[in-house]
Amino acid sequence: LSFFVTILGSSGAVPAYGRYPSAQLINLHNEYMLVDCGEGTQMQLARYDLPLMRINHIFISHLHGDHYLGLPGLLHTMHLHHREHELHLYSPQGLGDILTVQFFYSRTALNFPVIMHTLQTEERTIILDHKHFTVETIPLRHKIPCCGFLFREKDKPRRINTEKIPPGLPYHKLVALKNGEDILDEAGQIWLKNEDYTLPPRKSCMYAYCSDTAYHEALVEQLKGVDVLYHEATFTQEDEGKANETMHSTAMQAAEIARKAGARLLLIGHFSARYRKLQVLLEEAQKIFANTRIAEEGSTHSVAEL
Amino acid sequence: LSFFVTILGSSGAVPAYGRYPSAQLINLHNEYMLVDCGEGTQMQLARYDLPLMRINHIFISHLHGDHYLGLPGLLHTMHLHHREHELHLYSPQGLGDILTVQFFYSRTALNFPVIMHTLQTEERTIILDHKHFTVETIPLRHKIPCCGFLFREKDKPRRINTEKIPPGLPYHKLVALKNGEDILDEAGQIWLKNEDYTLPPRKSCMYAYCSDTAYHEALVEQLKGVDVLYHEATFTQEDEGKANETMHSTAMQAAEIARKAGARLLLIGHFSARYRKLQVLLEEAQKIFANTRIAEEGSTHSVAEL
Repeated sequence: LSFFVTILGSSGAVPAYGRYPSAQLINLHNEYMLVDCGEGTQMQLARYDLPLMRINHIFISHLHGDHYLGLPGLLHTMHLHHREHELHLYSPQGLGDILTVQFFYSRTALNFPVIMHTLQTEERTIILDHKHFTVETIPLRHKIPCCGFLFREKDKPRRINTEKIPPGLPYHKLVALKNGEDILDEAGQIWLKNEDYTLPPRKSCMYAYCSDTAYHEALVEQLKGVDVLYHEATFTQEDEGKANETMHSTAMQAAEIARKAGARLLLIGHFSARYRKLQVLLEEAQKIFANTRIAEEGSTHSVAEL
Repeated sequence: LSFFVTILGSSGAVPAYGRYPSAQLINLHNEYMLVDCGEGTQMQLARYDLPLMRINHIFISHLHGDHYLGLPGLLHTMHLHHREHELHLYSPQGLGDILTVQFFYSRTALNFPVIMHTLQTEERTIILDHKHFTVETIPLRHKIPCCGFLFREKDKPRRINTEKIPPGLPYHKLVALKNGEDILDEAGQIWLKNEDYTLPPRKSCMYAYCSDTAYHEALVEQLKGVDVLYHEATFTQEDEGKANETMHSTAMQAAEIARKAGARLLLIGHFSARYRKLQVLLEEAQKIFANTRIAEEGSTHSVAEL
């Protein structure tokens, strides 16, 4: 069951050195979802040959331009590609107004329904309850209403232990075992006890996206048990004053959050244009949290351990 | 005196194969001006190392997203780079509303003045009267109000004929000659007759930008005497039906306009995503108008003959 994150943009507000503004594509159980949609996201999807038309949910963390300005163009491209099925947009208050005035002047009537979900960014809320996973908001601290997103797999079924199953067991009995049931014989007695013929389910995993935010200790509790954490790291610790002023984090602070929350992997991004090379940010984070990676454009990261 | 056009985007509504939506940078007498500003324009300016901060005039032909969606990000980058001097925006009715709602939700107060000029797209109008050139609208035929732009150098001064000038002539007399005056002797009689000591001025040149438009015969009269013409060529003649339906032009039609207007060079662009290779469009246009070029991303074209 797929659970991958592909980075489309790693830049902060001013795109520089070929880096693009924030956007990530999540493939979770073959459901494609976009998290943030900075300017150029549709070009980045095309560059990495990703399935733009299969995206059904788009989550916008906040209404600073570097997190959503690619959205109108993306929607219009879906329209021109004859999309007909509905698209869900999740955003703090305002995105509807922004899109409406643009489509008014371009006289665009999209040929697919857009379902707008207005996010309340102050407290943790389940905003998508899918058969196999949930998506929840993560309250963040920024200059305007802003939240991150937590993608959490639901409990998975037990796995058939193929080495133990009697040969020729009918398919519906296999399904019953997978669903956790015991198999009875004709007399109604337990014939195959579930735990003897199945293995425990695979671990359910979590991915958290946290951008943009000042260092926010309360995040640690929110992120307990996360497997992969993306946390913004706009500045180095040397520029902490600038981070405080603009309500962003340093690489060291991102690593602190990852360490305290017990993440397995930390991805850092949203880099300021003042850093041409990113090695300094990576090294700073790795001193605190060794398993840190740069959220580099085009890179894909597995949320499950492979 | 510089007069160059640099192509930042050659794509139609759906960006494809690495092509970007419409945008061009004009360098006219060292004044930098942007014509259209599709998504990703600020990244394209950075890619080609062009002076984003020196742009003082931005002309938007119409409010379809592929012609202006790069503008909010570009303005915000100018803001973050501490621009303070005023910026002039020219657009059909609506751009102000679109920007206002975005800046409202992002709580952005630009630290430089933006002067909005609302274009009336139905008739030819001078919208910028610079010391050395004018910019005029060119009414186009499209689905929403839309105009092209004509950049026209004003008459240039005569040139000093250095081979004939008496040695030691004072500077103020050189300036007077350049301004077309005769030089008098102390008795008030003509000493140096202007036409004997100067050469005719260099030719004043014209560049016309025409996107988006259906084939529009009336353009020929509007474009008489143009040196370089950019004309959209979204489709091949084989797809003429599609061109008619969407109010775009074919490569052959673009070439017809260039031929009838007597242009020196035709640039074609705004290519549909249906064409991976552009050779077919180029060849179609060149059958009618030999001196046609693809408006390729990153290419620069001189409007004056070099």
